[in-house]
Amino acid sequence: MSMSTGEELHRFTTRLYPICRSITGNGLRQTLRLIGERLPLETHEVPSGTRVFDWEVPPEWNIEDACVIGPDGRRVVDFRDHNLHIVSYSEPVSASMPLAELLPRLHSLPEHPDWIPYRTSYYRRSWGFCLRQRDLERLPAGSYRVEIKSRLERGSLTYAEAVIPGRTREEVLLFAHVCHPSLANDNTSGIAIATALAQWVAAEPRRYTYRFVFAPGTIGSLCWLARNESRLKRVRHGMVLALLGDPGSLTYKMSRRESSEIDAVASYVLAAQDLRAQVIGFSPYGYDERQLCSPGFNLPVGRLTRSVNGGYPQYHSSGDDLSLIRPEFLAQSYEACQRIISILETDGHYVNLSPKGEPLLGKRGLYGSVGGRSPVEREHALLWVLNQSDGTRSLLDIARRSGIDFERIREAAGALQDVGLLEPQGSKRRPRIKGRGARRATTARSQRSKRGGR
Amino acid sequence: MSMSTGEELHRFTTRLYPICRSITGNGLRQTLRLIGERLPLETHEVPSGTRVFDWEVPPEWNIEDACVIGPDGRRVVDFRDHNLHIVSYSEPVSASMPLAELLPRLHSLPEHPDWIPYRTSYYRRSWGFCLRQRDLERLPAGSYRVEIKSRLERGSLTYAEAVIPGRTREEVLLFAHVCHPSLANDNTSGIAIATALAQWVAAEPRRYTYRFVFAPGTIGSLCWLARNESRLKRVRHGMVLALLGDPGSLTYKMSRRESSEIDAVASYVLAAQDLRAQVIGFSPYGYDERQLCSPGFNLPVGRLTRSVNGGYPQYHSSGDDLSLIRPEFLAQSYEACQRIISILETDGHYVNLSPKGEPLLGKRGLYGSVGGRSPVEREHALLWVLNQSDGTRSLLDIARRSGIDFERIREAAGALQDVGLLEPQGSKRRPRIKGRGARRATTARSQRSKRGGR
Amino acid sequence: MSMSTGEELHRFTTRLYPICRSITGNGLRQTLRLIGERLPLETHEVPSGTRVFDWEVPPEWNIEDACVIGPDGRRVVDFRDHNLHIVSYSEPVSASMPLAELLPRLHSLPEHPDWIPYRTSYYRRSWGFCLRQRDLERLPAGSYRVEIKSRLERGSLTYAEAVIPGRTREEVLLFAHVCHPSLANDNTSGIAIATALAQWVAAEPRRYTYRFVFAPGTIGSLCWLARNESRLKRVRHGMVLALLGDPGSLTYKMSRRESSEIDAVASYVLAAQDLRAQVIGFSPYGYDERQLCSPGFNLPVGRLTRSVNGGYPQYHSSGDDLSLIRPEFLAQSYEACQRIISILETDGHYVNLSPKGEPLLGKRGLYGSVGGRSPVEREHALLWVLNQSDGTRSLLDIARRSGIDFERIREAAGALQDVGLLEPQGSKRRPRIKGRGARRATTARSQRSKRGGR
Repeated sequence: MSMSTGEELHRFTTRLYPICRSITGNGLRQTLRLIGERLPLETHEVPSGTRVFDWEVPPEWNIEDACVIGPDGRRVVDFRDHNLHIVSYSEPVSASMPLAELLPRLHSLPEHPDWIPYRTSYYRRSWGFCLRQRDLERLPAGSYRVEIKSRLERGSLTYAEAVIPGRTREEVLLFAHVCHPSLANDNTSGIAIATALAQWVAAEPRRYTYRFVFAPGTIGSLCWLARNESRLKRVRHGMVLALLGDPGSLTYKMSRRESSEIDAVASYVLAAQDLRAQVIGFSPYGYDERQLCSPGFNLPVGRLTRSVNGGYPQYHSSGDDLSLIRPEFLAQSYEACQRIISILETDGHYVNLSPKGEPLLGKRGLYGSVGGRSPVEREHALLWVLNQSDGTRSLLDIARRSGIDFERIREAAGALQDVGLLEPQGSKRRPRIKGRGARRATTARSQRSKRGGR
Repeated sequence: MSMSTGEELHRFTTRLYPICRSITGNGLRQTLRLIGERLPLETHEVPSGTRVFDWEVPPEWNIEDACVIGPDGRRVVDFRDHNLHIVSYSEPVSASMPLAELLPRLHSLPEHPDWIPYRTSYYRRSWGFCLRQRDLERLPAGSYRVEIKSRLERGSLTYAEAVIPGRTREEVLLFAHVCHPSLANDNTSGIAIATALAQWVAAEPRRYTYRFVFAPGTIGSLCWLARNESRLKRVRHGMVLALLGDPGSLTYKMSRRESSEIDAVASYVLAAQDLRAQVIGFSPYGYDERQLCSPGFNLPVGRLTRSVNGGYPQYHSSGDDLSLIRPEFLAQSYEACQRIISILETDGHYVNLSPKGEPLLGKRGLYGSVGGRSPVEREHALLWVLNQSDGTRSLLDIARRSGIDFERIREAAGALQDVGLLEPQGSKRRPRIKGRGARRATTARSQRSKRGGR
Repeated sequence: MSMSTGEELHRFTTRLYPICRSITGNGLRQTLRLIGERLPLETHEVPSGTRVFDWEVPPEWNIEDACVIGPDGRRVVDFRDHNLHIVSYSEPVSASMPLAELLPRLHSLPEHPDWIPYRTSYYRRSWGFCLRQRDLERLPAGSYRVEIKSRLERGSLTYAEAVIPGRTREEVLLFAHVCHPSLANDNTSGIAIATALAQWVAAEPRRYTYRFVFAPGTIGSLCWLARNESRLKRVRHGMVLALLGDPGSLTYKMSRRESSEIDAVASYVLAAQDLRAQVIGFSPYGYDERQLCSPGFNLPVGRLTRSVNGGYPQYHSSGDDLSLIRPEFLAQSYEACQRIISILETDGHYVNLSPKGEPLLGKRGLYGSVGGRSPVEREHALLWVLNQSDGTRSLLDIARRSGIDFERIREAAGALQDVGLLEPQGSKRRPRIKGRGARRATTARSQRSKRGGR
């Protein structure tokens, strides 16, 4: 992974960063348009008021301007300066009030006086402003004017999908939330990496169908789940992608099942790539894995981040800006995603077609024919694949058990397949159906004998 | 737990301590009467000679007086001074003999010269005395007179039960042995705590039926098992209570199954209550768990002690007196029992009734409606219960997996049940019977198709 | 184990060491004759060209003489000096050539300039010589004469078996390869120990039938597998024996299943015998376990060595001579094999015939009848065996769980069997067949009721 990939990723986050996103509205649509410039993207609109499971799509929120004007007539809090100054989903207001009445509407971070916090009020009609603690402390007593030019109207929630068909209809689901305004790590990093990954996936034929979903957090994933419920059984693997540009080491959070193939693959890739990487158990908070892994769906979907949500000081504040995320971290995260996908694409269960004793590798050109030396890694990989391939162990299982890199194991499997010593387990399905027929016959016989025994 | 509870417990041990208990006889009956003053107790008499499995109830033993009179006519070993001076079940003797002949009948503890050992000879007719090593060493040569005024007669073995009915007939079995004379930790501490626990259990409605058994060790529990064999399947959980007042840290010994619910609950309570507490594997020696967990019964019964049997220097000697056991230790042991019972009472498997995505907690008043902050523990508890409640995991499982205290998890489950988001798994039985009917129909069909295939 | 056993073992390795063994030929036959002097041995000849699975028995190789004659007419590399000087299976040659042409045929160990390497070319027609690096460096330029008086002809591969019948036809398979020329640890140590073990096994009645196979590596075990394929299901346990005389600590390599009884037994014996002993996972390289544990056979066969193949500097060189292996190491290895066999012979699952409560050991003379003391180890062993013997746990399981030595547990089981409290699980087969009949009846009834439900 060259720095240029990291720089390219960072450049896209820089374009996404200034947009005022929320869970609905034109900032969200503009974000999806920017992604759509790079990917064939299908955009969906879900009308306000639509029931989605226990929830309802809220009114569409758009904002034109918002400010607090001080006793001296200056804009002391100004939406034009920073998207985070307005509590997302603030209702329209035009009013005057003394400082004491205004104060409960003003949010700051006393422990980080230079950062503007990020606040939302999606499901309770309200309004408010966020500002730096040091600015809050300077507000003089007196009368303040509040102007919020927002609209909360029947409209729709927007999400988009890029679907890249593969040889099978079984799907890998990659999920990025697209609802955070002017927060760089959370979530322009995830959007940029998901977009680049979709481009890379589309560049060559794939085994799986890949579905990249760009949706607002929580309600967006619920909308997607509601509209795709009948197709969820196709989802074989998935990841939520977020917080992928900060200096923290990579963190994979397991799916609710904690034993999904994606859990094994991501754990393997992270351990091989970064000694400091960590794998954490499932928990029911975080990003859209909350919904995707709710007990009614329980999808095999994990989550890849660097720091975890809430796990770095700048989280959900203006400190999460473009200087926090760095090209080399974006590049490393991207590379981990690529490796995970590469293993998902090529892992599988194989069957040794010459299982009685070792086949003679020498006569097939696979093995040094002068004996007496320790076999080298390639030969070890061949022997491991042959010995373990009884259909019960995947190539990744073999890589983990042998300690040999997955790529070497996969190459060995390929070489063995080329000389007819190995075949994917699936190829044997037909003979097995015969076997099943035989068993049926047996059952029928035992049925008769039971009757005879009456 | 106030010190006053500990003092109350200690006061009862003080009343129990002076009684000369054995596995039969009037000391045992007197002990049960003292318990019966505090509890509705049903007393059972099992006649001498009754076969119980491989054993037989021995003759009843009662003792009036016993002494060894020295060459100078003084009582050098005197039962009136300490119950432990006589080997329990000593037969009546009135004889004179030289010291050399007497010595093999005298038991002492050379390594603890100030303590009188505790010895019994229930199943082999014999007699003997126990005395301090330093007193033994002072015995002059000469002729000694031995007087044991005991009776070994057809009579009966006595045990008693307090049964506290609950909403179900499923039982929690609490077992305390009542056969040790003038040993404070072993076993007045267990008797006092079992008695207080029964009073506490009876003070409010309970899910389980509680059965407190006060019986002599080994032969007493065998009698109880023999008389209750047909009801043992009702025993869902149980503990043997003993050695609960010494300064050692709490020790839970697992049931023979080592995977009973009581094993999980007791382990959880001990780990939460006392960092030094330990959980040890099952072993086939100790107290009545030997019988209750014999392979023919294999009851889900563990054992709670502080030090283990044989695990403190004063064990089975006069050093195990009222100064060894202290109110604060009795109180802590009692509190652990209460917590274990509280979890047994309230643990259960629940089903999330809104399992697709997270239900909207805000509209039900369960959740802060301003987003953007890290959810706090109560909210985490709600999310964990919702996410994990698919019927396969108990509240205790959820507490252990989440690291959130069981009580918080139970409260969250209660709150979710109140708003209709959760119900106990049992509530669904009726709809499931329909499901089973459907499956039956399918089976019938496949039955027909098999026949069609003839 | 006295030193004399070690010395006796070493004496046999000394007789075996000078023979020029290969995977076929007269050296191999001579080796089997020496074994046959000590054991009733059945020798098998498998003709050259015979197909064995993916392989073919190669031509028989015999060698009379071989040398390289230098420009000055001296034998600079001489087979008469050391068997290892000739690459095994070298074809006959009589030719002259300059040093430059000869050099690619000369093998040495630059990192061990005083050792002659061991090289073979069984399956590719070739020839070559092995020599010390320091001798190689002294070869002057000039013309060399090469004379190899070998024969590669249709003949046969030889292997031999000693079968020692036991009470059952279930087999323990002990495998030693016999194809290495003048290498002491690899493999005269394994041959000597397997031979002595067979003598010891034959000296008393045994539960299992023991099959000792002495065969050339790889192709020899494949021949044995091919000829015994229909009987492999009788193999209940097995070990490959090799590298048993060097100073390394004992190493047991698990069978491919990694959960065979032999894996548990050998792990137990090694841990008890030698703190430095190690148990390693299965891997598909090494000795004949490669074939015996190929997925098509997957026999419960592990491997016992001291150092592992390739795990000591002298491996596959003339450094592996009679000074490397020492009587005390041979003796320790032999003793470990004996212990493993002793446990295999006596381990088993037993059933407590008095499972309700503890049986009264005192009246059967098994237990001290004066209570009140900590039971000692023998009593603990009795209680453990009684408590755990419900048919699901073997004596070895009980030894491991209790921490009591297997031999004590086995003695306790014997004592309990003597007094009628325990019987081997197998003894109950007949009553169980009745039970099965009862179940059949039930099935018939439920069959009828299904019909009635139509």
